[in-house]
Amino acid sequence: MRSERYRECVALLEERQVSLESIADCVIFLHKRYDDDITQKRCLEVVDAVLEDPDIQNALIVSLELDILAEEGNLRSEAIKEAMMKDEGLFGVDELMGLGMAFNYGPIAITSFGYIDKVKPGIIGILNDPKEGTCNTFIDDVVGAIAACASSLLAHERRHH
Amino acid sequence: MRSERYRECVALLEERQVSLESIADCVIFLHKRYDDDITQKRCLEVVDAVLEDPDIQNALIVSLELDILAEEGNLRSEAIKEAMMKDEGLFGVDELMGLGMAFNYGPIAITSFGYIDKVKPGIIGILNDPKEGTCNTFIDDVVGAIAACASSLLAHERRHH
Amino acid sequence: MRSERYRECVALLEERQVSLESIADCVIFLHKRYDDDITQKRCLEVVDAVLEDPDIQNALIVSLELDILAEEGNLRSEAIKEAMMKDEGLFGVDELMGLGMAFNYGPIAITSFGYIDKVKPGIIGILNDPKEGTCNTFIDDVVGAIAACASSLLAHERRHH
Amino acid sequence: MRSERYRECVALLEERQVSLESIADCVIFLHKRYDDDITQKRCLEVVDAVLEDPDIQNALIVSLELDILAEEGNLRSEAIKEAMMKDEGLFGVDELMGLGMAFNYGPIAITSFGYIDKVKPGIIGILNDPKEGTCNTFIDDVVGAIAACASSLLAHERRHH
Repeated sequence: MRSERYRECVALLEERQVSLESIADCVIFLHKRYDDDITQKRCLEVVDAVLEDPDIQNALIVSLELDILAEEGNLRSEAIKEAMMKDEGLFGVDELMGLGMAFNYGPIAITSFGYIDKVKPGIIGILNDPKEGTCNTFIDDVVGAIAACASSLLAHERRHH
Repeated sequence: MRSERYRECVALLEERQVSLESIADCVIFLHKRYDDDITQKRCLEVVDAVLEDPDIQNALIVSLELDILAEEGNLRSEAIKEAMMKDEGLFGVDELMGLGMAFNYGPIAITSFGYIDKVKPGIIGILNDPKEGTCNTFIDDVVGAIAACASSLLAHERRHH
Repeated sequence: MRSERYRECVALLEERQVSLESIADCVIFLHKRYDDDITQKRCLEVVDAVLEDPDIQNALIVSLELDILAEEGNLRSEAIKEAMMKDEGLFGVDELMGLGMAFNYGPIAITSFGYIDKVKPGIIGILNDPKEGTCNTFIDDVVGAIAACASSLLAHERRHH
Repeated sequence: MRSERYRECVALLEERQVSLESIADCVIFLHKRYDDDITQKRCLEVVDAVLEDPDIQNALIVSLELDILAEEGNLRSEAIKEAMMKDEGLFGVDELMGLGMAFNYGPIAITSFGYIDKVKPGIIGILNDPKEGTCNTFIDDVVGAIAACASSLLAHERRHH
């Protein structure tokens, strides 16, 4: 039984063209070096577990609202609107949000977030190059963080088995 | 010569009833145990230095926008709007933003942020108990983080002198 | 059934004059503002849960070894030995270790660590003022971090009930 | 004029077969995607700046002492000694130290540390595969962190010019 907040997160991700499968594929990207037999099904389970975490849910919803607000011209600060529409390399608040999400899942999540943030596999690369008028400043960091947190769950599981 | 982004931050703080002097008083609160002779004038200087940092400026503007958007009913997510208007103890994104700002200023800033976040001296206590209809969810953490970062600058200065 | 590594941690703490009860009292100090009815028995349970975490165990053992090595004159670097024996305010590695332990338990653990690190209740105050020849540079941060992590477990439990 | 503590750090790195040039090459690896014209000379300058930071110096010296103590059999805890000699994937304290060093240099340093920790370019890959009897558990994370901090200095410089 999924919580209402979980369903809100999944609906928001889908509205922004991000499927749970595409996030699971990022988890496979992170984890396959440790376990060749990792499946998309198992990765979907840990992505779901992360998406049931209230800290993750709140950060995700706030972040995606910010992308939409920038896109629709509903932020008051011209400076921030402009920085977000251009995804300026040093805007910084998006990376801070992604890192904050990863902190709760330990050092493996943090280093994995750093890695995926540079390599930009799959959906993250697609998000990072949006079409004119779309603002994906926060969502690529949010997706990277969810994948990093999920891969940390897999890594800790391996230790205990 | 102050930058345009610095002036935008100061104007936003004032609009939300926060003066630079009240932030400097939080810095005094944090630093007086290490230096009895600390002055408001010196604290204002380090607060200014923090407010010239682009990472701090962006996080501050985004955070205060979010408070205003919640207050004016302009967030789409009912769940987040409600969590922010009530400043739910476990909303979490506000603390994450404050911590993210503090990270850049080292361990002293992080522990000072944790301390001030619990003790809520001066303006932070006032912000934490807003009148009906006002949303101060993010601003108390932002002000605490600025004071913590400024006190870290003072501490490092003492080491080198 | 406690693990061997758990028992090694408890034995090390006791050798350094720190009982689990004194750590539980720090958890009470942190949590009583949210729940007047918190008991030492419940706090001991969450302290035990934290001490079964492999990341915490490894950081604890390495940290207490460093205190003992400094005390017995078995560190090669004269500069570090001196900094540790004096617990120089800006040595920094001890706070970094405490913060690193707290990171895994989320923002509540981090802010609680910052708070306890300044207020130094109970055993932490005692550790912070060691008798001549004793090095407690790391252990006060380690104990503060364990209490902060345990209090974060209590806070999250309250949210879900 | 270099400080005494800086010279102690450089001597320790050289004793462990790590030259400043090999760290500068890691900085080039991190930064060349942003600036094709980056030179080893410029990278050596920012590595030097990082190595003059007292927080970095203390963390570096403590970390390399721990590797040497493990190697020489001078740690009391058999469990830790064994974990360090094998560089167990989930020992964790080494990554925590590297992350702690990176925190002080902001989000760019943290994500760069995460990236380099996975890709292991140049000297980091060599350190990660030590010959029998050598313990490099901490040093690869320390070198990665120094390179990540130095690359953050370069990134911030680019913003301001």
